[in-house]
Amino acid sequence: MVPNWIEQRAALTPNRVALTYKEDRWTFLQLANRSKEYAQQLKNQGVQTGDRVAIYGQSSSQLVMVIFACMQLQVEMVMLNLRLSKRELSYQIEDAQVKKIIVQDELMKQLPEVDVEFVQFSTIQQVCEMAVPVNSWRKDSTMTIMYTSGTTSKPKGVRQTVQNHLASATSSLYNTGLIEDEAWICTMPIFHISGFSMLCKSILHGVRIDLYEKFDEEKVVAQLIEGSATRMSVVAVMLEKILSHLEAIDAKVSPRFQLALAGGGPIPKAYLQRAAALHLKVAQTYGMTETSSQTATLSNEDALRKIGSAGKALMFNEIKIEGTSEPFVHGEICIRGDHVTPGYIGQHAHLPTTVDDWLHTGDVGYLDDEGYLFVADRRSDLIISGGENIYPAEIESVLSSHEAVEAVGVCGLPDEKWGQCPAAFVLLKKEVSEDVLRAFCEENLAKYKVPKTIHFVDELPRNGAGKMMRRKLHELL
Amino acid sequence: MVPNWIEQRAALTPNRVALTYKEDRWTFLQLANRSKEYAQQLKNQGVQTGDRVAIYGQSSSQLVMVIFACMQLQVEMVMLNLRLSKRELSYQIEDAQVKKIIVQDELMKQLPEVDVEFVQFSTIQQVCEMAVPVNSWRKDSTMTIMYTSGTTSKPKGVRQTVQNHLASATSSLYNTGLIEDEAWICTMPIFHISGFSMLCKSILHGVRIDLYEKFDEEKVVAQLIEGSATRMSVVAVMLEKILSHLEAIDAKVSPRFQLALAGGGPIPKAYLQRAAALHLKVAQTYGMTETSSQTATLSNEDALRKIGSAGKALMFNEIKIEGTSEPFVHGEICIRGDHVTPGYIGQHAHLPTTVDDWLHTGDVGYLDDEGYLFVADRRSDLIISGGENIYPAEIESVLSSHEAVEAVGVCGLPDEKWGQCPAAFVLLKKEVSEDVLRAFCEENLAKYKVPKTIHFVDELPRNGAGKMMRRKLHELL
Repeated sequence: MVPNWIEQRAALTPNRVALTYKEDRWTFLQLANRSKEYAQQLKNQGVQTGDRVAIYGQSSSQLVMVIFACMQLQVEMVMLNLRLSKRELSYQIEDAQVKKIIVQDELMKQLPEVDVEFVQFSTIQQVCEMAVPVNSWRKDSTMTIMYTSGTTSKPKGVRQTVQNHLASATSSLYNTGLIEDEAWICTMPIFHISGFSMLCKSILHGVRIDLYEKFDEEKVVAQLIEGSATRMSVVAVMLEKILSHLEAIDAKVSPRFQLALAGGGPIPKAYLQRAAALHLKVAQTYGMTETSSQTATLSNEDALRKIGSAGKALMFNEIKIEGTSEPFVHGEICIRGDHVTPGYIGQHAHLPTTVDDWLHTGDVGYLDDEGYLFVADRRSDLIISGGENIYPAEIESVLSSHEAVEAVGVCGLPDEKWGQCPAAFVLLKKEVSEDVLRAFCEENLAKYKVPKTIHFVDELPRNGAGKMMRRKLHELL
Repeated sequence: MVPNWIEQRAALTPNRVALTYKEDRWTFLQLANRSKEYAQQLKNQGVQTGDRVAIYGQSSSQLVMVIFACMQLQVEMVMLNLRLSKRELSYQIEDAQVKKIIVQDELMKQLPEVDVEFVQFSTIQQVCEMAVPVNSWRKDSTMTIMYTSGTTSKPKGVRQTVQNHLASATSSLYNTGLIEDEAWICTMPIFHISGFSMLCKSILHGVRIDLYEKFDEEKVVAQLIEGSATRMSVVAVMLEKILSHLEAIDAKVSPRFQLALAGGGPIPKAYLQRAAALHLKVAQTYGMTETSSQTATLSNEDALRKIGSAGKALMFNEIKIEGTSEPFVHGEICIRGDHVTPGYIGQHAHLPTTVDDWLHTGDVGYLDDEGYLFVADRRSDLIISGGENIYPAEIESVLSSHEAVEAVGVCGLPDEKWGQCPAAFVLLKKEVSEDVLRAFCEENLAKYKVPKTIHFVDELPRNGAGKMMRRKLHELL
């Protein structure tokens, strides 16, 4: 058991600013009280402790209150990705068997028709008496569920427990320290672990979050220059925009700013060199949904010396390379620690996530002679585009279901802006245009998953056993 | 399971200075390696993982290596208090059934004759190959055992697990933050939880310890003025010496210095006011052996506004007053959290320490309307003298065993220097001098437990049931 984070934080630092969003700001006590009002409204709508709900909203103070209200009641939250297609949303909602979908009013029309009741934000944001919160939280209870795609199967709902989020925030604190008047800039989506983990850190560490509706390099750069925030998380594409803007206006980052954590795939060397010139400290991280954010981080001091590395395992995390203890030998990256998910929900609930407590990531990498992790190859054929994970299998599955398609292979191709973009290689059984297939994808997939290019081919590369080899697809170009 | 702290820390910040002692200094990597040599020597002496040993040594770098070597092997450490009499030491050594006593050579003669083998520091500090350490530590395994006296019984050996120490260090980190180049001044005895917990913080937080053989206000004050350390722990008597010295040389504390944690009983108001004038930030804490150090801390900002309070429970700790949830109502202070001991060893192993996970401290206090803890009365009749806990029952038990004594009552009386000192009220059955009784006490008790005054009385105050009422003893004066 662990004491209710929100209440404990409100008791410890009631008057400290917890959250800013646009022109508004809330203290920890205000957040705690407001979230208990939201919680009461949720109860009025029939939501009880232990229930599972889906949440669908853009980054906003309202979304934060909804999330904190669910925490106050210890309700499991399925964090729906705003970019998903209706088909993808349907699948997740059904797989998770949620009791309610809590949805931002303006986004109602983006949701699929499903046999689940909706609760709109406008309903639960009414002022009312405060609910009695759950005062002791079970460490093993599920706080959030985030879907992540597998290499060969349908997306799996990953459980993230109270303990997982706590371990992640604690390891992060041991790693980066905590100075007075910290504030995180949050431009990452909250339905992602990268954004959600910041909310957890905010309550646990007692630091302010400057929440952005969406990434805005001008505003971010202004905060970096004036030193009004101390930390942020970025993916490569954001970092590049920040660097370009700093360069364009010929400004340097304030020494008050401590660190930008860079996740969601590798950061190009050139960016790190440009960041150093602008006094922007950047630490590369390696994390995933299954580990509730960071497992390893490369300290800023090592950023240029160990370029390309994701650093070392944080204090309470362990990394090993399957089948070897020798440096520089490639193998599957395995992770152990209290931040590792205990398992999946729904149709994948029976699948193990760990072997002897070790999470087998599917990512390939090695440790160098000083113990620094280098990720050589993301989970099999994972494509990372602008920080979003895309599994070829998902796109292949959609395209294969089209009547004109006989077989299809998808891989990532380098893209200047997004890092990578998916490309499809299609073997037809009857004539169809590229536009028709693209429209079919747009209907069934999140926009970022729609192949940027579709190539018609006569044959797909296969190994002796007939298995399609995605890594050879690019040779067809 | 949690990764071996020492190895993990050495991997993360190998070249950071971990420890200074007199003219010497060690990095985390050097500490890790040297402690593995010590560990190998311990193995050569027959000490194995899971064994229980007693440790008897003064604060020194050698003592730190011995402790870290025991951690590397996951050997349970009974931390023997240097101030105990031979009789008290015998009891603890026998109760704990230790396999070996690891002893500083110069202190051999202070140990009682017991049927346990000694291993001298000089034996295990020989350079040799490094032992293979235990890489994953069980959270529930016992790291240390410290004896604390009960109100009515013999001292009890309190188990402090890996998890207990970890929870304590983590709560402390969440409370105080962590800046660059932190260093703790350690003048508290390492056989006390106040000192031992600093060693844990050092490894876990990656901060330097400036270890003192013994408290030295001149050296401490020099560090405070130059800002070469950032934190320390004090008891009232030390704080007063620091304040007097600062006042005498008319100096102020550097802003680099972050905080002095003041434990071991209440700090007089006047000290806090003097500290504020000298720019010395002081935070009152409430902790005990059974909670592996701090449970609550009063932040420096609240120091004068909430004078007399021990502050609020740290992030992951909970405090309640038994039988009430109303503010200002006195009752027994109960504590819950991962820092609470799972139990005792030896002849008290059967006694429960908690009820529904709540530790019943025996201390009486209340929470005010803002949730601040005020400790009204220490565990029944606990006497705190210079930060050391003294239980009247222990002294009474010794005096009662003297042939001339019929009955005895002991209580604490205010003392300008030590806060409190024990006083004995003795009912004789045959004539004996005060000096004889004092000599008898000196033979059987640690020096700080020997009554400062012995009063011969005709009657002891008793309640209707004949129970001696220690709180009425002072009325006999």
